[in-house]
Parts: sequence; structure tokens; C-alpha cells
Amino acid sequence: MIGLAVMGQNLVLNLADHGWQVVAHNRTPNVTEKFVASEAAGGRVMAAYDLQSFVSSLSRPRRILLMIKAGAPVDQQIDALVPLLDQGDVIIDGGNSLYADSQRRCDALSEQGILFVGSGISGGEEGARWGASIMPGGNAAAWPLIEEIFTSIAAKAGDEPVADWVGPGGSGHFVKMVHNGIEYGDMQVIAEAYDVMRRGLGLRPKDQQPIFGAWNEGRLDSYLIGITADILAHTEEDGTPTVDVIVDAAGQKGTGKWTVVASMDHGMPVTLIGESVYARMVSALKPERMFASGFLGGKVDTIPDAADSVIADLEAAVYASKIVSYTQGFMLIASAEHEYGWRLDAGTIAGLWRAGCIIRSRFLAQITDAYRQNPNLHNLLLDDYFGAEITGAVPGWRRTITRAVNAGVPTPALSSALAFYDAYRSETLPANLIQAQRDYFGAHTYERVDHPRGEWFHTDWTGEGGAVTSGSYGA
Amino acid sequence: MIGLAVMGQNLVLNLADHGWQVVAHNRTPNVTEKFVASEAAGGRVMAAYDLQSFVSSLSRPRRILLMIKAGAPVDQQIDALVPLLDQGDVIIDGGNSLYADSQRRCDALSEQGILFVGSGISGGEEGARWGASIMPGGNAAAWPLIEEIFTSIAAKAGDEPVADWVGPGGSGHFVKMVHNGIEYGDMQVIAEAYDVMRRGLGLRPKDQQPIFGAWNEGRLDSYLIGITADILAHTEEDGTPTVDVIVDAAGQKGTGKWTVVASMDHGMPVTLIGESVYARMVSALKPERMFASGFLGGKVDTIPDAADSVIADLEAAVYASKIVSYTQGFMLIASAEHEYGWRLDAGTIAGLWRAGCIIRSRFLAQITDAYRQNPNLHNLLLDDYFGAEITGAVPGWRRTITRAVNAGVPTPALSSALAFYDAYRSETLPANLIQAQRDYFGAHTYERVDHPRGEWFHTDWTGEGGAVTSGSYGA
Repeated sequence: MIGLAVMGQNLVLNLADHGWQVVAHNRTPNVTEKFVASEAAGGRVMAAYDLQSFVSSLSRPRRILLMIKAGAPVDQQIDALVPLLDQGDVIIDGGNSLYADSQRRCDALSEQGILFVGSGISGGEEGARWGASIMPGGNAAAWPLIEEIFTSIAAKAGDEPVADWVGPGGSGHFVKMVHNGIEYGDMQVIAEAYDVMRRGLGLRPKDQQPIFGAWNEGRLDSYLIGITADILAHTEEDGTPTVDVIVDAAGQKGTGKWTVVASMDHGMPVTLIGESVYARMVSALKPERMFASGFLGGKVDTIPDAADSVIADLEAAVYASKIVSYTQGFMLIASAEHEYGWRLDAGTIAGLWRAGCIIRSRFLAQITDAYRQNPNLHNLLLDDYFGAEITGAVPGWRRTITRAVNAGVPTPALSSALAFYDAYRSETLPANLIQAQRDYFGAHTYERVDHPRGEWFHTDWTGEGGAVTSGSYGA
Repeated sequence: MIGLAVMGQNLVLNLADHGWQVVAHNRTPNVTEKFVASEAAGGRVMAAYDLQSFVSSLSRPRRILLMIKAGAPVDQQIDALVPLLDQGDVIIDGGNSLYADSQRRCDALSEQGILFVGSGISGGEEGARWGASIMPGGNAAAWPLIEEIFTSIAAKAGDEPVADWVGPGGSGHFVKMVHNGIEYGDMQVIAEAYDVMRRGLGLRPKDQQPIFGAWNEGRLDSYLIGITADILAHTEEDGTPTVDVIVDAAGQKGTGKWTVVASMDHGMPVTLIGESVYARMVSALKPERMFASGFLGGKVDTIPDAADSVIADLEAAVYASKIVSYTQGFMLIASAEHEYGWRLDAGTIAGLWRAGCIIRSRFLAQITDAYRQNPNLHNLLLDDYFGAEITGAVPGWRRTITRAVNAGVPTPALSSALAFYDAYRSETLPANLIQAQRDYFGAHTYERVDHPRGEWFHTDWTGEGGAVTSGSYGA
């Protein structure tokens, strides 16, 4: 193990618990010394204070796990390691690296005979210590050398450890990135439900706690719903709900943004995650919002309907939106798979998310089942089970958006998911008008319903233009 | 002029019309020969068949405009040109280049004494020929050398030519990129209005033509609304509306995506453009949508209200959404300005968009006025005029979204804009819960309402965790 921040330390302890001999190294010898003397004392953990002794104390093929800051530090660490290694040694990057970096590192190290693995590891500190969700991808020859180690420290879904080979190159980190994007979406959707209940119905945290508690017994059963109930129950010493003293300006660490950027690169409409990342940005404009609230009238209207029916409909809206969000996430993964020539298995990926990680849920077990029963399932919305589930949730979902729109409570993620659903089930969308506009002002040409796709036509809309169609320069 | 595709040719003709002597060069001599022999015959256009003769036929300081494909070709062309140039010569890239490339080229050429300008040029072929919107940025020393040329070929807003210096480095192309993103948004918003009328009210193109025609007489008066009316009136030889034979799968050329990627980089919630780019992606899933329509029930319900009131509300929704979209666009520009240390003037930028370009409109004259009257205006929504305008449009906007949601017609851009508006005017958003969740699972810490911003706190939510807060590794 190289890197002894909290995640690295916890993974070392987890490995030691499972009988592995671990050599621990940190850039700062102090940290290594303190760790081996305290948390890891008397165990199976050996300290190495410089890279040379670290490498020489490992049995071959060496299996080296990096838990260091993503970006340039990973390249620097690899550059320092490679001259000390032998053919067939394994370097695993367990940090939150960008998939394109992992792809590049995997390719470069393969040429040098080093087996590179870029592995998503989710579950935070708790997961690292007691069982994580592990998503390794890269050089497939590495997997037999690390499989037993990884499965031993993974969380379990039933009897199955949630550590399995994802695919080639940067696919492990790509899947981890999408996981994190989905996590942003799940959190935003929950936050919107909380806000509708808080501002639309006037429910206090202690009123909402049993509602999230009840949801956690049903089809929304998940880690994030569970901790939401915990959070709403938590109070300060004076009895004030802790959630009420927290500033409503959310931070982000970048992987949500990466998912959106990847969705742009791959042309996949990951709208719910996009709105979730944007919602955090709006939240960060706190001083501006405080001013705008006075200037534009920040009052929210009370939702006039019975609270019970509002809450039941809200549960349907959250559930349906989650189905959309996971659908979009798997669409993005499928698109990357196609573009990069990876062979990924959606059932395996969904399976890895059932336990250990932040988005773990009953729902992911059902997604896993859907893909296992039908490995060729093109889209989650086209699965019999999920198709019926979302169709059933639609009326409550529409009522929820209608109420929020009329009350003035913003529900960007729940609304965007419904718009996607309605667009996805639309045989006809208004993009014909957009194509006409593009042909009008830029001679971009269009396809016709009475001709095969791939044949392009241009209309002289004004009777003044020529027959010249657009070249390399657009408007 | 280097590059004689349609845009380059039309700009040459426009320049010649205004009395400029132009030397025209194209990579393929044939194209140059044909152009000078036909369209540009007998005029002020001289052909140059190789780069050496092109350069030596220009008076100094040379002013060289590239209208070639963005990307590597621009670098190759610059590399070929520079050894032939003298200190103080000007290279202008008028293509749709990525702003970061223009920034890089400007910096590199400055060191060599060459004045680089990256200039957005909008208006398509028509604008290039008869008057474009021109957004130059880069090395400010170039502007006095090209100002007279650029203003002569620009369109005019009243008496003012819409060509003016934007700012340093890549700012010209950044502003052009945002223009194109806004263009995506305007087109999507119009398409959604068309779809609500088409599928929600059953209005045919010829029924809708006078509606868009009337909108074009009011506050929505704009080039895109005008061409929409033209398009809806256009029929095939057999009388079928042309728009009805066009496939509803929209393409894109990348600048919309770039705007979204930039919004992610700068942390600015450009939600309407984001949804508009995603909507084109959904449209492109045509075969999948056709299948899903059967599987998920693709029927749209008729909107039960009186058509006149539905249409009046729809106009308000389009107008309000446009205010949001332009607000978001200017937020993104301000953020880039801050990050890159540019000094840009929002009034100048809005002024450049009043004429010549695809998004030209009466509305942009009002935005220009707002920024000119108050150069320190922080946000367009906080302007007295636009604040009052959007507040007045809100009731109709809410009714429009409610109707679309209930009918099942997707309005992702109109809905997203309303959610942004409601979030922006919210003193309180639910991001406090998101911060609590992040602190719960990742010890990310949070700020408190009873302490100054910038002080960070951690709660041991379960009573089991330690006091350790998150390091460099997130969940």
C-alpha cells in the first residue's frame, strides 16, 4: 500500500483483518511510522520508509495499491516505481482518477510489461475499513493475481462479494465515475423531496424523519435514504435539528462534473445528473440568492393538498426519477463501451453497486436481476419489471411536479427526469423543426421521413438562397 | 483570406463590396482559380496560389484572416505562415475554434511578435455575405489595425456596426461559444412551444404559422421566431407541410456541448443550454424512441384548456425562459472573465448580438440597454426591467409547465428554466441536507448558519465515528 491517508489506512487494516501481509508506505515517513506503531500495531503490517525497501520487501509478482491524490501525483508515483519493478508486477490505482488517465496509464505500462489496474473503490472510510464496492478495470492479466485479495476486502451482497473485473483500460474508473454521478443524482432527488415537504408542506425534520424511515422499508430502501432519516433525527445540544444549522451551499469534488462532461463527449442525455450538478452550483450562489429572494419575491406557496397524498406521490416521483437516472447512467456506460471497444457487463456492474458503496440499495439488486435475466437488455426502461414500475409511478410523479411548480419549490432533477421519460417514450419529438431551422440558416440539410435515413436534403426556404449546403463552418 | 469555403468566399465578396483589396488563397488552387474567375471576377479580389506569393502580395502590417476548419488545421496553417511573416503582422482565426485553443495561440504568437485574433463570426452564409456579427478577441494591439475592416463588413444595429473588441486571449471565441449555446437554447425553447401546440393542442403547421408570426411582432421578435413562421408556412409540391416530412432527429456541431463543458469547468449553472443539448441527444435516439413509445405508452393527452389562453401562457413561458437562458449565458461569461482575468463588458457583448447573428432580436437590444445603463449589473435577473418582466411572466409560465406535465409533452428547457428561476429566488435551498449527507458518509464537513462562512464543522452522526475529516479521497 502506498498512501496512508484515511482511505489507505483503512484498506490496510481491512487487508490485515483478512490475513494478508501488507507493506505500508507513505511519502512522509512520520505518517508510516505512526500508523504502524498505533492502528496497525502488532498486526500483519510492515512499514517501508523508502520506495526501494518497499519494493524489495514485496513477494513477486508484486501487487502495489496506490491510494494517493488523483492527477499528477499518480503519474509521478508510477514513474518512480517502474524502474524498480519487474515484468508482470501489478500497479493498482485505487483513487478517484479520471478514466482517460487510467486508460493512458494502462496502455503505457502494458508496453513495459507492467500490469496496470485502475480501480474504483467506493464506500468512503467505512467501506474501506469494513467492506467496499470495488470496480477494477485495466490489464485483464492482473485480475487472477488480485482477485482473492479484492474479494476478501469487499462488502457482500448476500453471499457475493462486490468486487469483480469490470473490463479493459479505463473502464473501472469510468464505471466509478458514473457511480459518483448517480450518487449526485440520488442525493439531489432526496433533497428535493425534503424541500417539497419542508417548504411546500411545512414539515420539520422530526416530522420528516419517520417518512424517510418508512420509505427505507419499501422500494426506496437504500443507504442514502437511511442516513437521511438518521440526519433528520439528529439534534444539537439545545434541541435544534442539526440539519437546520447547516448552510445550504453544497460542495463538489469533481466526479459529478466529469460524468456530465463524459455525457457530452458520448452524446448521452444524462439529464438528471446534469441537473444535480447544476443544482449544487446554484446552491453555492448563496449570497446572490439571498438578495434575489427579496428582489424577485422568494415566497413559496403552501401545497394545498392533503399531506398524506402529497407524500405518497412524492415517493413515486423519487422512485421513478431514480429509475430514469440509473437508466441514463447505464446508457452512458453502454455508449463508452461501444466507443472504446470495451466489453462490459451491465449485470456485473449493477451487482458491484448492491453493497459497500454510497448508492447501495434494494433497487440495485433488482437492476442486477434485470440485467442477469436479460444480458441483452438494451435499456432499463425497456425491462418488463422497470417498465411496469415506472408506468405505475407516473401519475403520482406528474402530480408531484405540478404541485412543486405551482408552489414555486424547485425540483430540477425530478422535473428533468419526467421530461426525459416523456421524450424517451415519444415517437415524435419537435427536433424536425430544429432540423428545419438549421437547414434554413446554415444549410445543414435534413433527413426525410419518406426517404431512408442517411439521405440528406436541403430546402431553399426563402426562394432566394442557392443550392449550396454547409461546409465545415457552422453558424 | 485563407480558406474559400462558403463562409470564406462570402466574406471576401463582402470585403470587396466595401472597397477592400483582398488576396484570396485556398489550399486547393482549383478552388481559388474558380472563385476569382466567377463570383469574384472583375472585382477587387486577387488570387494567390501558394502561401509565399499570398504573403508577399499583402501590404504591411499584413492582416490575414483564416476561415478554415477548426482544430489542427488552424495550427498547421499558422505554423506554415509564421516563418513568412514580420513582427506586427496580424493573424485572425475567424472559424469556430475552441476558446482554449485561441488563448494558447494568442500567447504563443505574442512571444513571436505576431498579433493573434480569435474572432467569432456569426450569421452563417448570409451574415458573411451581407453583414455578420463579429466578436474578435486576442492581442489588443491588433484591433486598431482591423477595426475599420471588421466594422465595414458587420451587420448594423441601428447605426452601430456589430463588430467590436471583446477582450484578451480566447475571449472572442468564448463569447462566440456562449452565443452558440444560447442559440441551441432558443431553438429548443421554440421547438417545445411548437410541440405543445402540435401534440397538446393539435395545431397544424399552418395553424401555428400565424401564432409565431404574431409573436414575432411582440417581445419575442427575433430572427429565429421569424424563420420558424417561414418554415411552418413552407409546403412540399403536394401541399404537405415541409416540416412534417423532416425526421425529428437533430444534429449538432459541438459548440453547444462546449458551452456545457465550460459551464462545468466554471461551476456555472447553464441549465437551459444543458437541457437543450441533451434534448438533441434524445431526439437522435429515434429508433429506440419508436420502440419505447409502444412499450411505455407514447400517447400524449390533449390539453383541456382554451387554446387562446394556452398560447398566451406559452408565449410567456418562452419569453421567461429566454430571460433565464441569457442570464445563465452572461453568468458563464462573467465567471470566465473572472477566472482568466479578462476585462469584458457585458453591454458590448450583448450589443454584438443585436444584429447579424442567429440569436438577433429585439430582446438583445433591451439586454444591451440594461447593461449600458448599469455596467455593474451583477445578474440580468436583478435588473429592474427584466426582474419585472419575468415576474409578470411567471403565472403563465407555471400554467404552461403544469399543462405540459399533465399532457405528457416534454418541455425540458422550459421546465429547467423555471426550476432555475425558483432556485435562484430561494433564500433557502435543500443543499443543507446534501452537506449533511456528505459529512455523514465522507466526513466532508459543513458550514453553519451560526458561524461565519469558511469555518467548517463535522458531526459524528452515528455516535460511532471518529473526529477524522475527509482527506484527499472522496466517496
